[in-house]
Amino acid sequence: VLIKVINPNTTESMTATIETWARAVIGPGTRLEAVTPPMGPSAIESHYDEALSVPGLLAEIIDGEADGVDGYVIACFGDPGLDAARELARGPVAGIAQAAMHAASFLGRGFSIITTGSRAVGHAWDLADRYGMRRACRGISACDIGVLELESSPDALPRIVDECRQALRRDRSDVIVLGCAGMADLVAPIREQLGVPVVDGVSAATVFVQSLVTMGLVTGAAGEFARPVEQVYTGLLQEFGTERPPP
Amino acid sequence: VLIKVINPNTTESMTATIETWARAVIGPGTRLEAVTPPMGPSAIESHYDEALSVPGLLAEIIDGEADGVDGYVIACFGDPGLDAARELARGPVAGIAQAAMHAASFLGRGFSIITTGSRAVGHAWDLADRYGMRRACRGISACDIGVLELESSPDALPRIVDECRQALRRDRSDVIVLGCAGMADLVAPIREQLGVPVVDGVSAATVFVQSLVTMGLVTGAAGEFARPVEQVYTGLLQEFGTERPPP
Amino acid sequence: VLIKVINPNTTESMTATIETWARAVIGPGTRLEAVTPPMGPSAIESHYDEALSVPGLLAEIIDGEADGVDGYVIACFGDPGLDAARELARGPVAGIAQAAMHAASFLGRGFSIITTGSRAVGHAWDLADRYGMRRACRGISACDIGVLELESSPDALPRIVDECRQALRRDRSDVIVLGCAGMADLVAPIREQLGVPVVDGVSAATVFVQSLVTMGLVTGAAGEFARPVEQVYTGLLQEFGTERPPP
Amino acid sequence: VLIKVINPNTTESMTATIETWARAVIGPGTRLEAVTPPMGPSAIESHYDEALSVPGLLAEIIDGEADGVDGYVIACFGDPGLDAARELARGPVAGIAQAAMHAASFLGRGFSIITTGSRAVGHAWDLADRYGMRRACRGISACDIGVLELESSPDALPRIVDECRQALRRDRSDVIVLGCAGMADLVAPIREQLGVPVVDGVSAATVFVQSLVTMGLVTGAAGEFARPVEQVYTGLLQEFGTERPPP
Amino acid sequence: VLIKVINPNTTESMTATIETWARAVIGPGTRLEAVTPPMGPSAIESHYDEALSVPGLLAEIIDGEADGVDGYVIACFGDPGLDAARELARGPVAGIAQAAMHAASFLGRGFSIITTGSRAVGHAWDLADRYGMRRACRGISACDIGVLELESSPDALPRIVDECRQALRRDRSDVIVLGCAGMADLVAPIREQLGVPVVDGVSAATVFVQSLVTMGLVTGAAGEFARPVEQVYTGLLQEFGTERPPP
Amino acid sequence: VLIKVINPNTTESMTATIETWARAVIGPGTRLEAVTPPMGPSAIESHYDEALSVPGLLAEIIDGEADGVDGYVIACFGDPGLDAARELARGPVAGIAQAAMHAASFLGRGFSIITTGSRAVGHAWDLADRYGMRRACRGISACDIGVLELESSPDALPRIVDECRQALRRDRSDVIVLGCAGMADLVAPIREQLGVPVVDGVSAATVFVQSLVTMGLVTGAAGEFARPVEQVYTGLLQEFGTERPPP
Repeated sequence: VLIKVINPNTTESMTATIETWARAVIGPGTRLEAVTPPMGPSAIESHYDEALSVPGLLAEIIDGEADGVDGYVIACFGDPGLDAARELARGPVAGIAQAAMHAASFLGRGFSIITTGSRAVGHAWDLADRYGMRRACRGISACDIGVLELESSPDALPRIVDECRQALRRDRSDVIVLGCAGMADLVAPIREQLGVPVVDGVSAATVFVQSLVTMGLVTGAAGEFARPVEQVYTGLLQEFGTERPPP
Repeated sequence: VLIKVINPNTTESMTATIETWARAVIGPGTRLEAVTPPMGPSAIESHYDEALSVPGLLAEIIDGEADGVDGYVIACFGDPGLDAARELARGPVAGIAQAAMHAASFLGRGFSIITTGSRAVGHAWDLADRYGMRRACRGISACDIGVLELESSPDALPRIVDECRQALRRDRSDVIVLGCAGMADLVAPIREQLGVPVVDGVSAATVFVQSLVTMGLVTGAAGEFARPVEQVYTGLLQEFGTERPPP
Repeated sequence: VLIKVINPNTTESMTATIETWARAVIGPGTRLEAVTPPMGPSAIESHYDEALSVPGLLAEIIDGEADGVDGYVIACFGDPGLDAARELARGPVAGIAQAAMHAASFLGRGFSIITTGSRAVGHAWDLADRYGMRRACRGISACDIGVLELESSPDALPRIVDECRQALRRDRSDVIVLGCAGMADLVAPIREQLGVPVVDGVSAATVFVQSLVTMGLVTGAAGEFARPVEQVYTGLLQEFGTERPPP
Repeated sequence: VLIKVINPNTTESMTATIETWARAVIGPGTRLEAVTPPMGPSAIESHYDEALSVPGLLAEIIDGEADGVDGYVIACFGDPGLDAARELARGPVAGIAQAAMHAASFLGRGFSIITTGSRAVGHAWDLADRYGMRRACRGISACDIGVLELESSPDALPRIVDECRQALRRDRSDVIVLGCAGMADLVAPIREQLGVPVVDGVSAATVFVQSLVTMGLVTGAAGEFARPVEQVYTGLLQEFGTERPPP
Repeated sequence: VLIKVINPNTTESMTATIETWARAVIGPGTRLEAVTPPMGPSAIESHYDEALSVPGLLAEIIDGEADGVDGYVIACFGDPGLDAARELARGPVAGIAQAAMHAASFLGRGFSIITTGSRAVGHAWDLADRYGMRRACRGISACDIGVLELESSPDALPRIVDECRQALRRDRSDVIVLGCAGMADLVAPIREQLGVPVVDGVSAATVFVQSLVTMGLVTGAAGEFARPVEQVYTGLLQEFGTERPPP
Repeated sequence: VLIKVINPNTTESMTATIETWARAVIGPGTRLEAVTPPMGPSAIESHYDEALSVPGLLAEIIDGEADGVDGYVIACFGDPGLDAARELARGPVAGIAQAAMHAASFLGRGFSIITTGSRAVGHAWDLADRYGMRRACRGISACDIGVLELESSPDALPRIVDECRQALRRDRSDVIVLGCAGMADLVAPIREQLGVPVVDGVSAATVFVQSLVTMGLVTGAAGEFARPVEQVYTGLLQEFGTERPPP
């Protein structure tokens, strides 16, 4: 089983963190590749960044198909490009928001999501709706720490733990979901300090994709997620068109 | 990792089938135990049967906790006793309807469920609502074959394939979900004949529970799913009370 | 008209309270029987207790059918075993949560539910969803008093009144619903102190079942709620099987 | 207990039918008054008719309050003026669509509504949404017979029975709800021919209002449904204003 | 293009305000007529007032059809009589609540509505549901100022600005919607003080109706919104019947 | 008022058609610019195409802001890049699916959408959900004609008319919505042949944006839709980063 984990932003150190946590949960028969795309934003902190992370992500999926990848993880909590990725990939594709919410829904009746920036809250609710999690998701709140600050800022942990504590009480939740690919280091300390299950999306998406591949399941390609038809692409994006047809 | 798969009905041959398919998907580090409960109905074909399958199921969970089980699968598509089981179990618990619907939601935008009897359809919709899958679940239909007939009846397969074919067209679905623990043998033939992903809940629940355990995730026990308080039980069910306290 | 009110827990004094309040609302042509089941938990304070209250409840329905009962009330706010009871009963069956929420919805646009323990809140929301009351139900909160303490604790009333007052303001509700079968004594004092309608589920379910019977209405048994098919039962629950077939 | 049943249209023969069926279900201690309003349309077959039935209906409620009425039934399946009526009435008010849908929801998981004209279907769905019955209501279809034809047309019954039969199969429903105040005569024949419970809203609303009154429940008047503030009314509707203040 | 703006209450000064703001947004080719109906309440502050504003409103639509009006605005935030008006009008009809909510949904993901009286809040939520805006509408709160006080009260503005400020923070909204036809004067000061878009329904409904007429769009009259069938009307409302048939 | 209409695909002839229809509905004081983006796919017929149309679209918005554009139309029925565009644009931005659905909701209770290809149906439902139109949208069906075939294929019109006729009957809809930017030529013939209102999204979005600008409304930029923070962009997309900061 070969799983490709794609960090949709272009910051290598974040890819390294993501890889560490993805690698920590895979089984002995699974090979894992974590990549930084060849184009796009250094961090995803707006709808603009998210939209512009998709071409690089799709380029990685096109490469992955040529390399025989069995399943993909999109390692950004906005799940950018998920539908487009499913058209390209033969195997299953999971976003980390999707996987984290689904995992949390197995552990209790309600969960709270803690995101980095407050402007991500609206989009996270949008995803909760799309995945049928509006009811299970009892609250989404932000600790207002930049994506790239998470690693360097000394008081990031106490602020996030405090936000989680408040969220548990306010939302009466059973579970915490971490709303950013760069937060996996925080799972253990939050769990220890608050005594509740804490879900990291990178781990969840990686094991779920591994699970789907193990079951022999692929993306359903008979209708909406069939391979894209050929199309001429022009300008900067010319290479995404017929000169480099989707597999 | 020790996973206990509980067949909530008392038919040993069905437990054997369930065990086969659960065992087929676990990783090398996972031990699996499949059990038939000490009391209850020979098959679950009504709300009455389902309600009365729960005491036997809970007895198995109580035993499992004493044995150090890390996670549980409830192997009946009605997901009987799921909330009660979560109060008893330290580790995660998954129902096969829940796991199958979640797995299918990773493979496309819509799925169709094929159940055995038509009187199970209403309950399956209830579960779809509860799990946030009302939108992803585009149809639930029955092939009207008894749970225990599945193994013996020679024309079960063609009838089920035909029902799946109709469901895919009618519901415009990307994926088929098999709505009974005894249908796992049919995954491969249906997939081959119809060319779409086919999800079996026993496999899905087993790998998902294994995934959750691998991530170190347990049931959130701080609120609604805390251990049951002590209570006196009388009559036939006396042993479920303080004489045998939940762990 | 013969109505059977079943207290799903095994505490006789609670059955007596329930009977008093059910008897207070029936018409002159109605006979009422309130019973304590032959097995099960002394109080229902967890999903575990609720699941294990169902066999005793179903035993009472089986007996009731033999006795010509016209309609049933399940007198626990979790509405345990409602679907299974409907398969056994020819006449209508109402749970007290269901009846109380429906009654409240006739009296204003929004109601607040006050339950005993906080771990019942999640399940009460689940029922609100199931009955289509997610919008009318504007809040569910707990006064954190044990089910059996209600009768004995001197400060139960002031604490509950206070919780109701807060709920009315916070939820902007028109009506209070009492979320426990043992709270009917509190209807009058709360109504007097707060000046809003207060709904007790035992009364509501009893008059609604009487109403349905008066209209000649029975449970629809053509599909999902047909009588259970025969099934062999083993172990402790053997008597629920073919040795004692459902009517 | 004094219940006032208001036929919102001005056809006396329909009021008589309504009275017959309302009277058939009340208890010995209940007095019932069925009235035809002093103004408005001869039948309600459009949104226009429904809107213009409300002044007459409200005039009857104002009179009823002066007469000490304990509860009201609005006997038209569009439930016209329900919110306004609740502001005027001290006691409970039920619309027949509301009561019929709630009654049906106690008898199975799904019901089908049969209305007279097809242009009423949209409004009936609107009510189903408003009452939280979108899920329980599995279908609404019309037999395309005029409201006043119901009594005179010889083939009305077979056409309606046929429409009910199709609805049960198509919607997989457990129960039929009759979507017009003038259909109560059809309850018995449809039930006999199709073997399913058939709910008439006039009966249902009458017994439910009687039930609410028996429980001592009134409309919650602390917020949205407080008595209307004084207002000057001009023109044709002048008498609805301060010259004749709401009670 | 001829647009008729109907103030459903009978206060001329409010009609004048409405006219001013409607006139401020129309294009050079549009003629606009703002009218006060010949009957009804001086202000709409209850469901009772709203219901009784409808006959006057419909009389204005009947007149408008005779005058060749191309589209209508119902200038009260409760959108009274909208469905009935659509049956009478050939051209499009918009309520100001409907138009304001739709306009706001183009400007961000969430909006907050500020109404005059708190008893209007429940009805405004009802409209939000009906228009599919339950999710976009993040909060509805009242400044508790009477409809006719808005113009005269000196501290109306600061109180409303303060309520808006709180709503934006509490609801995390992007946009303010003013929940009364008489609030249009407040758009500019609120926008200046709070720096967010502020939507007035009168302006929104007027430009949207103008837009629909420009596109050649009319009310769909093939089904539910066909012209009302003839009906005899009696009493005060006699003139609404066959003596004066709807066009 | 300056409105910029962006055709997200790179086919100039389609931009010309879009421009014609947008220009047909604007007022005398409005200037309109219709553009083809400098990069991207020749047509949008998959999620892949849609995702890759967004960079070109955003480049046009960045240019538009420099040019003082007052409002934008995204002229593809998938509404690509809408959230990202709102972060960049000071004025309002409307997608044509969004505008068409909102316009249709003013003309009746239910509408049917006719798309070009069947693989667009799932995405259109997704948008209906997002815009709160799940209930008003009664059906989405495809005529299976390629986006670029619409202009050339002689039998496109009869096939689309036929699909619309079926949809109206099957969905019981009041209004038809055309689900592609290239279908505006078909509005008049469909309306004439079927006698129902037919909504074209390009016209609707253009007049609605003009309306919002006329009211002085802008995108709410205080929270989620604030301008994107600075970010380094690399690779092909380097020009979208700090070298060319969003305005």
